[in-house]
Amino acid sequence: MATSPLAPDGFPELPALPGVTLAVARCGIKYQDRTDLMVAVVEPGTSVAGVFTRSRTASAPVEWSRDVVKTGRARALVVNSGNSNAFTGRHGVDTVAATVDAMATLLGCEPDEVLVASTGVIGQPMSPGIIPVHLPAAIASLSADNWGEAARAIMTTDTFPKTATRTASIGDTTVTINGIAKGSGMIAPDMATLLGFIFTDAAIKAPVLRKLLNETNRRTFNSITIDGDTSTSDTVLLLATGKAGNKPVAKFKARRLQDFRRALNEVMLELAHLVVRDGEGASKFVTITVSGADSNKAARNVALSIANSPLVKTAIAGEDANWGRIVMAIGKAGERADRDRLQIFIGKIQVTAEGEAVPNYDETPVAAHMKGREIDIRVELGLGEGEATIWTCDLTHGYIDINGTYRS
Amino acid sequence: MATSPLAPDGFPELPALPGVTLAVARCGIKYQDRTDLMVAVVEPGTSVAGVFTRSRTASAPVEWSRDVVKTGRARALVVNSGNSNAFTGRHGVDTVAATVDAMATLLGCEPDEVLVASTGVIGQPMSPGIIPVHLPAAIASLSADNWGEAARAIMTTDTFPKTATRTASIGDTTVTINGIAKGSGMIAPDMATLLGFIFTDAAIKAPVLRKLLNETNRRTFNSITIDGDTSTSDTVLLLATGKAGNKPVAKFKARRLQDFRRALNEVMLELAHLVVRDGEGASKFVTITVSGADSNKAARNVALSIANSPLVKTAIAGEDANWGRIVMAIGKAGERADRDRLQIFIGKIQVTAEGEAVPNYDETPVAAHMKGREIDIRVELGLGEGEATIWTCDLTHGYIDINGTYRS
Repeated sequence: MATSPLAPDGFPELPALPGVTLAVARCGIKYQDRTDLMVAVVEPGTSVAGVFTRSRTASAPVEWSRDVVKTGRARALVVNSGNSNAFTGRHGVDTVAATVDAMATLLGCEPDEVLVASTGVIGQPMSPGIIPVHLPAAIASLSADNWGEAARAIMTTDTFPKTATRTASIGDTTVTINGIAKGSGMIAPDMATLLGFIFTDAAIKAPVLRKLLNETNRRTFNSITIDGDTSTSDTVLLLATGKAGNKPVAKFKARRLQDFRRALNEVMLELAHLVVRDGEGASKFVTITVSGADSNKAARNVALSIANSPLVKTAIAGEDANWGRIVMAIGKAGERADRDRLQIFIGKIQVTAEGEAVPNYDETPVAAHMKGREIDIRVELGLGEGEATIWTCDLTHGYIDINGTYRS
Repeated sequence: MATSPLAPDGFPELPALPGVTLAVARCGIKYQDRTDLMVAVVEPGTSVAGVFTRSRTASAPVEWSRDVVKTGRARALVVNSGNSNAFTGRHGVDTVAATVDAMATLLGCEPDEVLVASTGVIGQPMSPGIIPVHLPAAIASLSADNWGEAARAIMTTDTFPKTATRTASIGDTTVTINGIAKGSGMIAPDMATLLGFIFTDAAIKAPVLRKLLNETNRRTFNSITIDGDTSTSDTVLLLATGKAGNKPVAKFKARRLQDFRRALNEVMLELAHLVVRDGEGASKFVTITVSGADSNKAARNVALSIANSPLVKTAIAGEDANWGRIVMAIGKAGERADRDRLQIFIGKIQVTAEGEAVPNYDETPVAAHMKGREIDIRVELGLGEGEATIWTCDLTHGYIDINGTYRS
């Protein structure tokens, strides 16, 4: 698979992060010529928070990890690609149990301190032994510098690994945030979205971590969509080792958390954008901003209606400045809209006003914008103060190629 | 554009229908080498009912016709293809006014007895004079036998004209129902869907006609989806001339209406299925039945979630028996589902039970079914008595080809 044309020029090397070591392995679960297992071990005292898919048919690993994060603590994370261990009945539960038991034995921790996540084909039982048998060698090769390898091991139809890093100040202490993510189809909001693992050496208590993750997730991973479909495996975890040595943060509203929030938002937004840039078959990165809605929620629904419309997405793929389809998508969103008040802008150029094209509408600059890689659509509904931004990609032949054949 | 591979072998010739004459014309609104205007004139005393798009950005013709059907009577219908006269501001209103005024003058009726519908590009103002100038010749060529021509004149990306006919008994009187329809993209339920015009010579009062249309529309045009998108122009009209001579039906629950309801359902379902068979790029006709849901509405939402999922639709296009994506679509529908109770059948073959593939699942017969033109997916949720059926098509390269270039 060729690398997405929207891939960034380069990828940041993630620095070592005190309290975290990583390893990868080749289990041959589905892929034969690459790594498909990633293990992260974190020091005792690490706090954790997670957000998960809202699917009613969530995978066995999601159900397990959802329980682990309730405890607020973790010692390890085991992630495989190639098989999502979803809709695998009691076999799926057995596989998770075997994996976490093996990991707990090897680390000398409790099974419920081991987080798991799986991504890949739905509905094919995995042998319970396949991961455990590779764990001893993986643990023997744990290293603080395996971030890039870890990001590669969790890929499925991704065409490039996704990593992001920032530093922030908490009081006088400089802390680091490293993140890796995967996912390029079956990605829609209203849930965690895909796999994303964020690590920091900051000391932040679990209840605060939970609020931080929920807040940031809403504006990042939950504000992107590829095809409107929702995975049974979506998992985003935030782990804080506390090894940076700052006084542990126990209050979400603490002033000294401000810079950390900024940095966390940047890491997660960068990863979320990378996921869109690697959307299956994507050739355009599309930013959809809706303002003037009755509420932020209404703005979000209108933006999602535009972002998920196959007709809008194919028009963008065809570089067609077909704003009529944006009108259509606004009209079907189910939110209040006044045809004669809404204004549509493409690439900052106003194209509609008063229920029709602007007077002497000149398509030339709009058509030129549509030929670029980065497409901006802005809708001002003219009703209230609600705002939202959603990021998505276009719908191309590449999407059909990938999904008409790939068994995911 | 090649005719859809799902097109029926032949099309029924519609018989003359007492009280209805039709004509077509070439206005050159967008298409140059074909007809793009259809006019139907009905005798005085004709009752009418209509259902329309729920889009908040509905077209000028929809807004006009929505008011006309409130009166329950009509004398004429003027429909053009190539331009939907949607999002055309006051220009759009002027165009409608010019058209209905011209038609009313020529027929000697009131403007509010003239129904209009337009289908095609959104957002391009139409000259108010373009239809009126062609009306005199059209009216001079009105004939009782122009049904096939009428069905052709209203086509846009359709690859074949859509007609259906039935007879029914109302008491001792045999009545006829003729229907024509168009539409192949931007078709989703929750509204009238596309253009459909149903005529009968039965005598049925407008309030009864309204209930008949709403009831039947829900199970036919509102139970199909191509891409989940919703037109700004969807219009379905039912006109009853009364020329068959039956005693006018004034009660919806009248026993003697039973056979007519059966026939109306057959005409509208046949047209709705033809629309799916002409779905943009369609290569498979897909029937999705959901049973055992908490309610009919819940069943419908689950069926729509499957029908509109790009991942399910591309798997079908790829003839891949990828039932995991059906699990995914059930999970994201937002309705109650119990992973361990739901059963999925493809082509009548059970593929899942108790939260995983059935024991010794053999994909061979399922894979064979996926290679056919007619795909059946059935989901039994195992929760309640709710049922629904939705018809859709697959998502292919053809859809991208058509919509990446066609300005609709």
